[in-house]
Amino acid sequence: MDIQQIVLASRPKGMPTKDQFRTETVTLPGLQEGEVLVKALYFSVDPYMRGRMNDAKWYASPYEIDEPIMGGAIGEIEETKSGNFQKGDVVQGFLPWSTETVQKGDSIQKIDTNLAPASYYLGILGMPGLTAYFGLIHIGKPKEGETVVISGAAGAVGIVVGQIAKLKGCRVIGIAGSDEKIKMLKDEFNFDEVINYKTTSDMKKAIQETCPDGVDIYFDNVGGFISDAVIANINFHARIVLCGQISLYNAAEVPMGPRLQPMLLTRSVLMQGFIVGNFKDHFREGIEQLSQWVKEGKLKYKETIIEGFDKLPEAFLGLFSGENKGKMVVKV
Amino acid sequence: MDIQQIVLASRPKGMPTKDQFRTETVTLPGLQEGEVLVKALYFSVDPYMRGRMNDAKWYASPYEIDEPIMGGAIGEIEETKSGNFQKGDVVQGFLPWSTETVQKGDSIQKIDTNLAPASYYLGILGMPGLTAYFGLIHIGKPKEGETVVISGAAGAVGIVVGQIAKLKGCRVIGIAGSDEKIKMLKDEFNFDEVINYKTTSDMKKAIQETCPDGVDIYFDNVGGFISDAVIANINFHARIVLCGQISLYNAAEVPMGPRLQPMLLTRSVLMQGFIVGNFKDHFREGIEQLSQWVKEGKLKYKETIIEGFDKLPEAFLGLFSGENKGKMVVKV
Repeated sequence: MDIQQIVLASRPKGMPTKDQFRTETVTLPGLQEGEVLVKALYFSVDPYMRGRMNDAKWYASPYEIDEPIMGGAIGEIEETKSGNFQKGDVVQGFLPWSTETVQKGDSIQKIDTNLAPASYYLGILGMPGLTAYFGLIHIGKPKEGETVVISGAAGAVGIVVGQIAKLKGCRVIGIAGSDEKIKMLKDEFNFDEVINYKTTSDMKKAIQETCPDGVDIYFDNVGGFISDAVIANINFHARIVLCGQISLYNAAEVPMGPRLQPMLLTRSVLMQGFIVGNFKDHFREGIEQLSQWVKEGKLKYKETIIEGFDKLPEAFLGLFSGENKGKMVVKV
Repeated sequence: MDIQQIVLASRPKGMPTKDQFRTETVTLPGLQEGEVLVKALYFSVDPYMRGRMNDAKWYASPYEIDEPIMGGAIGEIEETKSGNFQKGDVVQGFLPWSTETVQKGDSIQKIDTNLAPASYYLGILGMPGLTAYFGLIHIGKPKEGETVVISGAAGAVGIVVGQIAKLKGCRVIGIAGSDEKIKMLKDEFNFDEVINYKTTSDMKKAIQETCPDGVDIYFDNVGGFISDAVIANINFHARIVLCGQISLYNAAEVPMGPRLQPMLLTRSVLMQGFIVGNFKDHFREGIEQLSQWVKEGKLKYKETIIEGFDKLPEAFLGLFSGENKGKMVVKV
């Protein structure tokens, strides 16, 4: 059977372009015992995938040249030689960017589309939602009345962090890059204040003005000069949750900035890097809590859905120019 | 009664000099009810005191111009109008740099000179010892077989950290600034390796070679380029204990360096600033454990004792040129 796949054509230096991707037609082998044929429904595009395009140690092993990009995806079982799945089951897993794929039955999981739409499992009930939950709750440890600042606030993780922080009784300040996003975060997601970093000349002052009591938790998806401004306003015993550094992922050289340690030292600040996998023993807790909040209407969800398998590279690149509101998903 | 005191004459810009200090003769008032007259025996000089010379928020409030420098000290009760003390008692407290001082009885504590020599209470059984203990045990959380790197290893805190790390079964790598210190750390304190940062051209490579399995705990007293080299070799799930940044205390402008967050993020590293006061609820635990180890001969102590009240400024300035081995103390 002939299918389409998108492979890594070359490794980017700095910002990736469409040239790094190539669409190919390949023939799938027949199913072996224990395998399933999965038709792709939705693909997740995520900032961390930029790191896997480099030939260097990252969260996960690098993508191979001429091999398909891999990522979070939702699919439907079309054919099965595994006792664990029936035709029509909707599943999630890390799948190649291809229209159909043969997978071992033990590498994918069935999802419950009665609880939430399938694409939610790439977002609020998937990696971004769990990342928000564990980063804020287990590292940030928010206390009622504290001030939480979130960079990349309109992204898949940021939107969830802000809502959970509000549920915990915190004052929530977002940082985002367009007036449309700011309106959304304030009107739909109840953020207390949102700063447009693209139109603010003095970010340090802007943080100071929106956080008159200082910053107790900084949930950082972005890094760079935005972080410098937030950390200049950090409180004693603050927690800095390092979740992403999207502003630096495309840097060709090691970026320089003000040394943080004197500030972190004299204010007894904690800074903790993490990936969601560190909390895998708690995944059940996280998914149950997030599902509960979604069911109760306490947690709203936002997706930017782009249609068409061939739009995958474009959707991925859009993450770096800030084109998504909430989770960026491609519908096949 | 006429006594001598040393006051802050002016605030330093960058590295302080003797000109920032002035010795004066003043007359002490008589004792009020509840007060004691303390004759100074030993003064502690510590890197953190540099911060208090600035007119800015630091661990503690700034020293005032024309007022005595304050610091950890040991003294003897010469005269008492407090029921809690007898003439001849040896006490510790935060005292002004003066040959004698009138203090309220509730601002000083008696020490037990049978357990250890009086000056130990400025070091291994005082602030530096407790700093080493809490930083390493409560933040670093050493596990047997891990690699611990200590900058400022021959200083008052570093020497204790290294010994505790060895007691916990870790491999201990020190960084220090003279061959004499290196010999001392290896021969007397059983460090596995010590790097002389003043004669090593490629620190990153030196760390890599002495830490083939990477760095699990970095106990940082120094900051700057030494830290850059250590952090370049940091392991997944490592802990960076921010205890001091002596290389930066005299910086007149915010020092720049490579941005740390991408490394801390992708390796799930914890970085935690602290001061010993954060652990005050655990001081009894810390002092008991340290005393126990000292009594059992498991923890050795090192002091550099400089004689003469008038040598206080010089001893303090010597901290920044690395003249001390172990705790720097001035004997009056």
